Amino acid sequence: MTKLPLIFVSNDDGVNAKGINTLISMLQGLGEILVVAPNGPRSGASCSINVTASATCKLITQKPGLAIYGFTGTPVDCVKFGLQELTDRVPDLVVGGINHGDNSSINVHYSGTMGIAKEGCMKGIPSIGFSLDDYSADANFEPMRDYVRKIVSVVLEKGLPRNTCLNVNFPKGESYKGIKICRQMNAQWTKEWVKMEHPRGGQVYWLTGEMTDRELEEGTDGWALANGYVAITPTTVDATSYSLLDEMKNWNL
Amino acid sequence: MTKLPLIFVSNDDGVNAKGINTLISMLQGLGEILVVAPNGPRSGASCSINVTASATCKLITQKPGLAIYGFTGTPVDCVKFGLQELTDRVPDLVVGGINHGDNSSINVHYSGTMGIAKEGCMKGIPSIGFSLDDYSADANFEPMRDYVRKIVSVVLEKGLPRNTCLNVNFPKGESYKGIKICRQMNAQWTKEWVKMEHPRGGQVYWLTGEMTDRELEEGTDGWALANGYVAITPTTVDATSYSLLDEMKNWNL
Repeated sequence: MTKLPLIFVSNDDGVNAKGINTLISMLQGLGEILVVAPNGPRSGASCSINVTASATCKLITQKPGLAIYGFTGTPVDCVKFGLQELTDRVPDLVVGGINHGDNSSINVHYSGTMGIAKEGCMKGIPSIGFSLDDYSADANFEPMRDYVRKIVSVVLEKGLPRNTCLNVNFPKGESYKGIKICRQMNAQWTKEWVKMEHPRGGQVYWLTGEMTDRELEEGTDGWALANGYVAITPTTVDATSYSLLDEMKNWNL
Repeated sequence: MTKLPLIFVSNDDGVNAKGINTLISMLQGLGEILVVAPNGPRSGASCSINVTASATCKLITQKPGLAIYGFTGTPVDCVKFGLQELTDRVPDLVVGGINHGDNSSINVHYSGTMGIAKEGCMKGIPSIGFSLDDYSADANFEPMRDYVRKIVSVVLEKGLPRNTCLNVNFPKGESYKGIKICRQMNAQWTKEWVKMEHPRGGQVYWLTGEMTDRELEEGTDGWALANGYVAITPTTVDATSYSLLDEMKNWNL
């Protein structure tokens, strides 16, 4: 009997978030599922790793084909930990999400969900981050179901090239016009800090911000989302700028 | 009178680290210097941002041409905060470092130092991360001095293309063979967790690891460092995989 694929799942909103639990339900039947997710919210964790504190792990659910653990580290730590300590198999797929919030455009760099996908990718495993452009804790993920299952099935079948993962973002809505394969939209975060007086005096600052200078041209992930499409942005972990590499050889440094 | 360039400096080892204070001394005379750095160590912070807690800022040093602030956020938060709240000018250069430790190869994704450079780059400012392959708190940064000043001067003069920053890594040693313009080396982190018994019982885990499967071919940053060269890896914040983008258009998703 052929073994079912092993699908490793994590997120950055924490193991109790609606997004990851909906994702687990969507993956039923596609493989065995191993979930190692942060024990609380870690939004904006990027590819951060915890190099100073120790970490602990707690089994939450174990039944045939599904194990769920909560872990005290970052999203990337969850991938590193789960793959070393909680399975003898190399997973066939690493999935991050479903994130409560959009990770398209330059958000890919701040995203813990995409940190998970990048970490899986750096370990040589086909990896996908799924995100919905809805930050609410009770966001409706159901319209995504058939798309998520199809994308996961295709990636399980075809694999992904070395150093490459997928950043998949869904617009908010009851249905989608289809899928667009996209490039990362250029944009800026601006007006990022709100100043307040601390109740005992002194200034404290909160990080917020507006995304401006959005390059809303057809072909970008931001354009796809703004026009009702599911945006798949193929994403590389080889950060080399090959064009500047060629140019700098003439800089006589 | 022409204004001096404004150089914005941050790091991830904290405002009191030897690396950033040596870097400040190396930049003397090249511009006005604004330093906003974490108030303590933030190694492994990547591009993380603090989206749940408030932050505070404290002036540490102010003299002509130099201001140093300590900030409670992440390295990327320091860039976002300093640029919005502590200067009316757009800096001519953003510099992260000097990091106590190597940020070449896939370490670029975990590095707070490179988080700073990527953040500056995403804000449209020429940006550089400097790192030394020596983790010790008392590392000797002096052999880097002329190289750092030259690279900073050239980038101030030439600028950098959109979406592109520099990841500059130095090998440990008293001198260097020269500079190599490099691509990011492929590698793996393995054996990443050490398990210990908590004094009160139960297991705790520490993140450590070995870098294996190093692609030590001429042309990679890892090869340059291993052979005594300063490695400059031109680094892009456009994470799109254009090759997979083309291929996926035939996937009929």
